[in-house]
Amino acid sequence: MTTSYEALKAHLATIGDLQSALALLSWDQETQLPPGAAESRARQMSTLSRLQHEIFTGDETALLLEKAAHDLNGADYASDEASLIRVVQQDYELATKIPAAHVAEMTHQESLAHHVWAEARANNDFKKFLPALERIMELKRQEADYLGYVETPYDALLNQYERGMTTAQVKAIFDAHRPALVELIAAINAAPQVDDAVLHRNFDIGKQRDFGLKMIEAYGFDFKRGVQAISVHPFCTSFSINDVRITTRFEDSFLNPALFGMMHEAGHGMYEQGVAQNLEGSPLASGTSLGVHESQSRMWENIVGRSREFWVWALPQLREVFPQQLEGVSLDDFYKAINTVKRSFIRVEADEATYNLHIILRFEIEQELLNGTLKPADLPEVWNSKFTEFFGITPPTDTLGVLQDVHWSAGLVGYFATYALGNLLSVQYYEQALKAHPNLPNEISQGKFDTLRQWLNENIHQHGRKFTAAELTQRVTGGAIDPTPYMRYLKTKFSAVYGL
Amino acid sequence: MTTSYEALKAHLATIGDLQSALALLSWDQETQLPPGAAESRARQMSTLSRLQHEIFTGDETALLLEKAAHDLNGADYASDEASLIRVVQQDYELATKIPAAHVAEMTHQESLAHHVWAEARANNDFKKFLPALERIMELKRQEADYLGYVETPYDALLNQYERGMTTAQVKAIFDAHRPALVELIAAINAAPQVDDAVLHRNFDIGKQRDFGLKMIEAYGFDFKRGVQAISVHPFCTSFSINDVRITTRFEDSFLNPALFGMMHEAGHGMYEQGVAQNLEGSPLASGTSLGVHESQSRMWENIVGRSREFWVWALPQLREVFPQQLEGVSLDDFYKAINTVKRSFIRVEADEATYNLHIILRFEIEQELLNGTLKPADLPEVWNSKFTEFFGITPPTDTLGVLQDVHWSAGLVGYFATYALGNLLSVQYYEQALKAHPNLPNEISQGKFDTLRQWLNENIHQHGRKFTAAELTQRVTGGAIDPTPYMRYLKTKFSAVYGL
Repeated sequence: MTTSYEALKAHLATIGDLQSALALLSWDQETQLPPGAAESRARQMSTLSRLQHEIFTGDETALLLEKAAHDLNGADYASDEASLIRVVQQDYELATKIPAAHVAEMTHQESLAHHVWAEARANNDFKKFLPALERIMELKRQEADYLGYVETPYDALLNQYERGMTTAQVKAIFDAHRPALVELIAAINAAPQVDDAVLHRNFDIGKQRDFGLKMIEAYGFDFKRGVQAISVHPFCTSFSINDVRITTRFEDSFLNPALFGMMHEAGHGMYEQGVAQNLEGSPLASGTSLGVHESQSRMWENIVGRSREFWVWALPQLREVFPQQLEGVSLDDFYKAINTVKRSFIRVEADEATYNLHIILRFEIEQELLNGTLKPADLPEVWNSKFTEFFGITPPTDTLGVLQDVHWSAGLVGYFATYALGNLLSVQYYEQALKAHPNLPNEISQGKFDTLRQWLNENIHQHGRKFTAAELTQRVTGGAIDPTPYMRYLKTKFSAVYGL
Repeated sequence: MTTSYEALKAHLATIGDLQSALALLSWDQETQLPPGAAESRARQMSTLSRLQHEIFTGDETALLLEKAAHDLNGADYASDEASLIRVVQQDYELATKIPAAHVAEMTHQESLAHHVWAEARANNDFKKFLPALERIMELKRQEADYLGYVETPYDALLNQYERGMTTAQVKAIFDAHRPALVELIAAINAAPQVDDAVLHRNFDIGKQRDFGLKMIEAYGFDFKRGVQAISVHPFCTSFSINDVRITTRFEDSFLNPALFGMMHEAGHGMYEQGVAQNLEGSPLASGTSLGVHESQSRMWENIVGRSREFWVWALPQLREVFPQQLEGVSLDDFYKAINTVKRSFIRVEADEATYNLHIILRFEIEQELLNGTLKPADLPEVWNSKFTEFFGITPPTDTLGVLQDVHWSAGLVGYFATYALGNLLSVQYYEQALKAHPNLPNEISQGKFDTLRQWLNENIHQHGRKFTAAELTQRVTGGAIDPTPYMRYLKTKFSAVYGL
């Protein structure tokens, strides 16, 4: 006899399978689609997206949820059963609050805005993008009203990416480390710059790829349950916890994009691969939030991948692959080169020290846009003056300023904060791992990553979406998201690199 | 205002998009799936297949079809509108005649049978496969009853792959050329064998791939609307007429599988790419039958790709790629090598001359199995005695005999005939193209394939599924499917190669 819980799971598996097919259509679009197929692929994705939304928001989901919740009333909060019901109830509420007509209008406007934005950015023409941006902000405000909120409309949008977090909480976290960030960057800027020319030599792409694959295989990315491919914008996706895909962008005269990009995406990938097998095929079988996801990618990219210990082990191997390019380059030279801090206009090129400042700027601006206290027309001026205040330099063009990110044109408002939260969490989690296993740095310098990966698996990965970022952080650290460890980490690291 | 026809098309587009996603899941499974994902992928494919079947066989399809048929009553038979309604009415009838429970049971038995068959073939153990085969034949007989037929149950199964053709028609076609085939093969076998050692030298796979891609690009396979990848079993699939994918199997010590395999799959691919753009996204946007599809792949593989004219143009290029391997090999040597006729036990390794005989054997056996005049337990004996009668050699094992094909374990009964029909049609169609353009051989010897491809496009490809194989053949040749041209072609070609 099928229990109500099994019936719910079967229903959700159908929706999940549609979601996986949709993710495959998207992966294939970014990695293999022939140019002539763009239109048919867009239609296929839109159809599957619509079907999935229709089935999920239908009455059957509500009925099955209600029955299962009734039958399993009293189940342990952390059990698979209670967690599934709780998380899907929230998913269902969010999905059903926004009318289908609004979703369709949003999709339509985003599709228009994307082309306009790309053209505006290419031509440094903010005015061209302005009407589309105004329309999108109107729609996002309306979306916030549909979703509902207690304090501020921005809460409703933030909650879509980082469930349960409020604007006030994020603001407190950001305010608590912004001044220290500004101060650190100014100090670094006043010190003599390190030399990173070694990273800009000529590196054969095939060899870069082989080396990168070797590194992330050592990390523990499981190629029996994973694939790596090439795309213009690197990303990680999954069609099940046993089929996790990452992509890489290669440059033949810059080592960083592929090397640290692969470590970053492998960090995301190992999180997905690490979800407990008994959650496979259910909506819990994924990372819990964008912030926690980013904590994993940043940990493997930066805390491990940009550590001196890591390169004690890896540099001799890289030297075998690129003997000429690395001739005469010492461990110290290389370590400093990969930890260069540069004030740059572009977020995606930012280093560990400057990254969060780029985010805080966007977080503040987004709220004002949504509240209406900042008119989109005034954006370039406000962006540039805030940027100057934060970084001490002024974007010479809007292309290098307010037009740089794809997010707003794609309707992603409230999303940026999660990148910064990920940075903070990466150090908070790593410090806990280090407390449990003080020998970690020594292991890393020997190319041993099992202890760290298994600790992450046990404490974070296996739970999938059972707990929110706050709940998970409480379980792991005994406290809340806190910027102190991250600032301590940055100051220690960069004081040494820059001799502050 | 939406017309009833537009409503029907929109409904069918949803089903088509699900079908395309399903085809992508399958393509990815064969070309890229990590080994650990087999189970989740099977679940995803089964879900999409179920959804697609549910939506297509639902009442909405019947209602929309009825309305559109009523509104467009009297439309020209060959019009897009009348063709769509006619073909989909037939699809709907076939899809709704078989109860869902039977489909599920069939899927279940096939999944079990596949493993059993693979093991039985590996161990030359027919008895191991027998119970599964018996069960599948029972189910296929039942399926024929559900589908209905006038003369013989085999008609119902054949109709699924070659719509409108009857067993009696195929039998007449096969009977009309079987004796001549047996005679030709015996004559070839009595003549001195040609030397094909040149094809079995060492050929770098990367270079094979580049050369093959160059050949099929010259044929006219459109890489702006197509992709080539590697898989264990070569195939062609499409997710729209603007996204057609082919796969290749490479051997480093045998030139044929990749070289002629790519030509073969490109022939299928150009058929799909050649369907008229105004049919894109509709159920008519594909090849009309397996037989006609095979006529295209065989034409480009054999009539063009194994012609002396083709190698006048291509051999100098292949010699540049593999100078050592082809040292001292003349055009005549090479032409004979690629046209070697060998009596072999295995169908998929068969040449142009012996191929249809392998098929006729299966066609005769399948009918007896389905009619019950042959018990599955007696298969090995009957197979071997028939094989000896046809080829003059006896399979030493069941692995090289009755166990060689995957088809029966996959429930594909009535399918084999289409391979042979494709061979016959390839020559019938090519003769018509040659009548219209007598200069074709000369063009081929200069590496010009546009005239042939455009003729095929105009006369065959563009129509998609509008006409059945019989209708199309009547339009193109003015007559019915006829083995005479094929036998004439074989005799002329192989009399020259073997000096008969």
